[in-house]
Amino acid sequence: MRQSVTLALTAGEPAGIGPELCLQLALEKRQPGVVVVACKHLLQARAELLGLAVELVDWEPGNHAVTGPGRLSVLHVNGLASTDAGRLDPANSAYVLETLSIAARGCLDGTFDGMVTAPVHKGVINNAGIVFSGHTEFLQELCGVERVVMMLATEELRVALVTTHLPLKDVSAAITPERLSQVTRILDSDLRRFFDIEHPRILVAGLNPHAGEGGHLGREEIEVIEPTLDKLRQEGITLTGPLPADTLFTPHWLDNADAVLAMYHDQGLPVLKFQGFGRAVNITLGLPIVRTSVDHGTALDLAGTGKADAGSLKTAVRVGEQMAKSAKKSK
Amino acid sequence: MRQSVTLALTAGEPAGIGPELCLQLALEKRQPGVVVVACKHLLQARAELLGLAVELVDWEPGNHAVTGPGRLSVLHVNGLASTDAGRLDPANSAYVLETLSIAARGCLDGTFDGMVTAPVHKGVINNAGIVFSGHTEFLQELCGVERVVMMLATEELRVALVTTHLPLKDVSAAITPERLSQVTRILDSDLRRFFDIEHPRILVAGLNPHAGEGGHLGREEIEVIEPTLDKLRQEGITLTGPLPADTLFTPHWLDNADAVLAMYHDQGLPVLKFQGFGRAVNITLGLPIVRTSVDHGTALDLAGTGKADAGSLKTAVRVGEQMAKSAKKSK
Repeated sequence: MRQSVTLALTAGEPAGIGPELCLQLALEKRQPGVVVVACKHLLQARAELLGLAVELVDWEPGNHAVTGPGRLSVLHVNGLASTDAGRLDPANSAYVLETLSIAARGCLDGTFDGMVTAPVHKGVINNAGIVFSGHTEFLQELCGVERVVMMLATEELRVALVTTHLPLKDVSAAITPERLSQVTRILDSDLRRFFDIEHPRILVAGLNPHAGEGGHLGREEIEVIEPTLDKLRQEGITLTGPLPADTLFTPHWLDNADAVLAMYHDQGLPVLKFQGFGRAVNITLGLPIVRTSVDHGTALDLAGTGKADAGSLKTAVRVGEQMAKSAKKSK
Repeated sequence: MRQSVTLALTAGEPAGIGPELCLQLALEKRQPGVVVVACKHLLQARAELLGLAVELVDWEPGNHAVTGPGRLSVLHVNGLASTDAGRLDPANSAYVLETLSIAARGCLDGTFDGMVTAPVHKGVINNAGIVFSGHTEFLQELCGVERVVMMLATEELRVALVTTHLPLKDVSAAITPERLSQVTRILDSDLRRFFDIEHPRILVAGLNPHAGEGGHLGREEIEVIEPTLDKLRQEGITLTGPLPADTLFTPHWLDNADAVLAMYHDQGLPVLKFQGFGRAVNITLGLPIVRTSVDHGTALDLAGTGKADAGSLKTAVRVGEQMAKSAKKSK
């Protein structure tokens, strides 16, 4: 089936599993609407290494993607220094960032309807002397937005986070009325815009065990979270909570909700990844563009072996397509 | 089948669902080896209210329990002031604690092989002017032990906690080498003693997201957790970790482990309760006696309606029986 949307898919770290996961998309029966943004010589070399019969088709703006059984639409990016699987090369770092820039700028100018990212390797980019703390921050800066929200999703469950990559001891102080309000508003509006949900229903976890148990186990719920949620409800956002995190993830609550808002990384993500092992997608909300990602790393030890599982990438592409269609509809 | 062990089952808060959950055990086909420690007039009244045909049989020390289809072994406890479902009465508090004392002392002197507890209501006990912060602390003091460990379990998963009911901001400071060592040793020795596992394999979560990511997201792993685990390994304890909590709960790790040790409440329990909804059991390790409990509260609004689900209590009894048998074997 010809897709009605065109997504840019960045192949990520050349030494990792990203390039071969992209090639696996070309072996699917369905025709995902993706254009791989990468060095075509890298894709060719990896296909030959793995014995994959994939025809690379040069893609030009304005065309539909032709990715499908046996073919892969590619937007070639110059500058790759080496193509070895499993061996990091700092000389490839500028190329990696260039693939991200091309994809993101293409989303902003309407060339693409969204972007999907395979994993990059932060360490080797930093070793090349480039300041880079991750896809999310890179895209946030490129798009010029103050706040983005990390959400992980499977087909059955969505979990967004108020705080992300912070030491646990710093989490409490980071849960401010401003941050909680910004994150909740972004989650609410992006569930409408990207997921076609007219009236999103959001479950909010407390910060402390038992959501503070009336102040006995911490006062952040009483002093920060409850008053902030009350204000947001007055703006028309449908929020339930703060709920104890250990009982929130049960059918009684989940069956009547569209997303969970967890206060911190390890409160929400262990359940999500347990529930959707190998099929979880990382989504960045709050950007003017659609962006999804795999939920795993570069897996250098698997690169070039053909053993890497494309489950997360395939889900990231499917979710990206759905989000892009919803965004087009809501325009 | 006649059970080879005899467990004391405390019926908990009289106004809650505890008494009727105990009655439901008498309706099972199998014959759980339990003696209900409660006021028999309360059990009689609740059975009549719900139209349950259960014969209450006075139990005396030295006898086997006869709980089974249609019958319930009862060790009567005096002092109950009122038996109304749904209505808390502070005048019942001394009775409630007396049931706990009788059960625990019976375990210590060998009358019982273990105890299972239905939920109590902390608030009404405190309102009666009695200092009481929970079953666990009560039993810890009665048994005279310095440290106990809370573990929740389903048939498939066991999660023990290094810290339990603490405000989140206080968790980092509470993860000391002393506490982590005590908890890990108790977990290891009680998996051997109560679960008949010869060489327990324990997965340990990090404290911070991504287990600190080499110090970038917190230094407790490097400064406290890793050195402590290394010492414990030298004592012969089999430990894997510290692992990132969000990837720990996946088959790759869980398939080769007997228990997970989480650093705090909402890192471990959301997954456990998601996985084993309605069938989770709360186990207190570190006591000289076997103690299991339901994982839910008194549910005053359901009391007397017959709608309460005995799934958690039945699992608590089954697990208690298994633990008691293992403990007898290891003596």
